[in-house]
Amino acid sequence: MRKVVLSVGMSLDGRIARTDGSVDFLFMPKDYSMGPFMARIDTAVMGRKTYEVALRLGRGTMGGPGMKSYVFSRTQALGERGGVTFVNEPPKKLLAALRERRGKDIWLMGGGELAGEFLKDDLVDELHLGIVPVLIGEGIPLFLPGFAQRDFSLSENKSYAKGMISLKYERRRKGAKRRQVRKRLG
Amino acid sequence: MRKVVLSVGMSLDGRIARTDGSVDFLFMPKDYSMGPFMARIDTAVMGRKTYEVALRLGRGTMGGPGMKSYVFSRTQALGERGGVTFVNEPPKKLLAALRERRGKDIWLMGGGELAGEFLKDDLVDELHLGIVPVLIGEGIPLFLPGFAQRDFSLSENKSYAKGMISLKYERRRKGAKRRQVRKRLG
Repeated sequence: MRKVVLSVGMSLDGRIARTDGSVDFLFMPKDYSMGPFMARIDTAVMGRKTYEVALRLGRGTMGGPGMKSYVFSRTQALGERGGVTFVNEPPKKLLAALRERRGKDIWLMGGGELAGEFLKDDLVDELHLGIVPVLIGEGIPLFLPGFAQRDFSLSENKSYAKGMISLKYERRRKGAKRRQVRKRLG
Repeated sequence: MRKVVLSVGMSLDGRIARTDGSVDFLFMPKDYSMGPFMARIDTAVMGRKTYEVALRLGRGTMGGPGMKSYVFSRTQALGERGGVTFVNEPPKKLLAALRERRGKDIWLMGGGELAGEFLKDDLVDELHLGIVPVLIGEGIPLFLPGFAQRDFSLSENKSYAKGMISLKYERRRKGAKRRQVRKRLG
């Protein structure tokens, strides 16, 4: 099944952007590569605010050709334009539609409200956090309160240049193994 | 100089306790030891809420003999009782007094309001975070907004049993090296 990966950079105090949306405190260490991650992804989903930050950073097409991007918005006209598709439906519904088609994994970009909705519906299969060694003190939190507890397993923990660390986690759902076995046994 | 170390366990979503103060989601991996840390500490400072959680967990003396504990409170009677000293003064003032005496490093326990005051006054020299692989969704955040940016250097990143990771950071103050050199040359 196509997995949803919440992959995002954040400060040590769990913020993905300053209050004005700027992300100047984030950096990409020279010994770190997004390559392996981008190779397993063909779809990006994000909130409207993350989209605007990405546009400002000159990454409007979100990874270039072959990448399909969806922007959740309550205010923008729906449909495709500028290389992305604007949607306004429950994440669960879009995800079900995406999973009916064959494809690679799905990148949930950014946090805040949209990540909260995904977590509320338990739609996040993996967490990839790039944590930079700074407390910014104010800003937009990756995790807003308002969802039930979600347990994960640590799958990777690496340190990179200038003290950025990369953490990878997989969702640990109770009974998931049993369900898989049952499915295999048919 | 005696350093202030903010050392605390937290969830992946940056919470040090559930809304009701319980910390059942935290755990101490069997391959992890507090020993080396406790050996460099002889003083603990904490907020009243953290103190009450510690009491409930049966650690009222906060590390036993030789450990001096201070509890910041706006409501409790001041002075020493039950193995701790209740204070109600700016953290900066207590810290100055502690630093006039010889001693080991100082453990800032817990987060929230008191950690915020320490960070506002730039009194935190080291961060030790023990992060468990769970999003709890609601609870008391380690880092409240309301302080200026504080840069750190990563000094240690280790993974332990059951996916708990231990991160250590040192405060990186601009001009700190220069000041040290000046002092040495003094």
